Amino acid sequence: MVDTLHRLESLIRSRRGAAPETSYIAKLASKGRAQIAQKVGEEATETVIAAMSGDPKALTDEAADLIFHLLVLLDDGGVALDDVLAELERREGVSGLEEKAARPT
Amino acid sequence: MVDTLHRLESLIRSRRGAAPETSYIAKLASKGRAQIAQKVGEEATETVIAAMSGDPKALTDEAADLIFHLLVLLDDGGVALDDVLAELERREGVSGLEEKAARPT
Amino acid sequence: MVDTLHRLESLIRSRRGAAPETSYIAKLASKGRAQIAQKVGEEATETVIAAMSGDPKALTDEAADLIFHLLVLLDDGGVALDDVLAELERREGVSGLEEKAARPT
Amino acid sequence: MVDTLHRLESLIRSRRGAAPETSYIAKLASKGRAQIAQKVGEEATETVIAAMSGDPKALTDEAADLIFHLLVLLDDGGVALDDVLAELERREGVSGLEEKAARPT
Repeated sequence: MVDTLHRLESLIRSRRGAAPETSYIAKLASKGRAQIAQKVGEEATETVIAAMSGDPKALTDEAADLIFHLLVLLDDGGVALDDVLAELERREGVSGLEEKAARPT
Repeated sequence: MVDTLHRLESLIRSRRGAAPETSYIAKLASKGRAQIAQKVGEEATETVIAAMSGDPKALTDEAADLIFHLLVLLDDGGVALDDVLAELERREGVSGLEEKAARPT
Repeated sequence: MVDTLHRLESLIRSRRGAAPETSYIAKLASKGRAQIAQKVGEEATETVIAAMSGDPKALTDEAADLIFHLLVLLDDGGVALDDVLAELERREGVSGLEEKAARPT
Repeated sequence: MVDTLHRLESLIRSRRGAAPETSYIAKLASKGRAQIAQKVGEEATETVIAAMSGDPKALTDEAADLIFHLLVLLDDGGVALDDVLAELERREGVSGLEEKAARPT
């Protein structure tokens, strides 16, 4: 059983090389990394604004947009979702995810 | 079997009310929504910079930071991870995730 | 003699209430603060990407976009350009602008 | 008579090569472009949050921080404040700053 994010990652991989006019993913991927990164920045700002507006539906939608575009950026940068999840697991293992509290700022 | 992100969500829920000095999550949550949202914005910028620097390890680390802080923001905003995943599923169902291509910009 | 930014501020004030279809400023102002703030976030991300790309012309253009949209946001938020310049002057006066070095982080 | 932003630009130029421990500007400049760009992203997020919070004093302070760090980034990227002001003037000259309204999105 594959979960939502892994299935989404597979979809991105299968579409990124398609004709740009046939797919949003292909269109975005064809624009290159700067444009994909730009979308991540935009969606993060929209997520921040939705959170500050106190609108759970908007926050849900913008978080979905942010995660989707982050997955496209990871794919473009040669990073697998599992690499990111492994990093999150590693931190949790080290110190119950609290290691950051001890980091110098 | 619970996956990494759901386990992380549970951890955030269990720690958010703890004494701030005992937990990074509790400390962040105690600062309120604006500070949590600020962290999401910061981590998104770091993710953008890591992607533009072409450093897969940095991109992995910053994406992990971004997802972690996004989960804290969702928790603070009363949104469950499953709500966001359901929204991603819904879009995929509508049109293989390509609905956005047809949206007016 | 009025400088560029003050003249731009006056232009924004004179246009913000115009019919949205006649002016980019009026169109943006009519969308409300969240949309104006969103543009500031977008232009900041574009500025970051231009800087990381090492392209001075792109950095110039994006910085111009960022300042322009920041002026629209200040206007919408009831803050005058002179208030921001006075704050910059104040910090410079305190300690040659270096006060931040002494701030706890 | 030199205005605030030009004086600030001169200050940045004079301090950027100083010993990092003697000056916030020197310390930041010594960290390199990615860290300076990161600060611009952070201050933009803080500006967005201050605007959404409806707090004019916070918006004033964050806009000052954003402009200050933008000037450091421009300096690091080899762009003069006058280049950015000239670009803003150019756009105003073309169409009363409204050219963007006619741009394809």
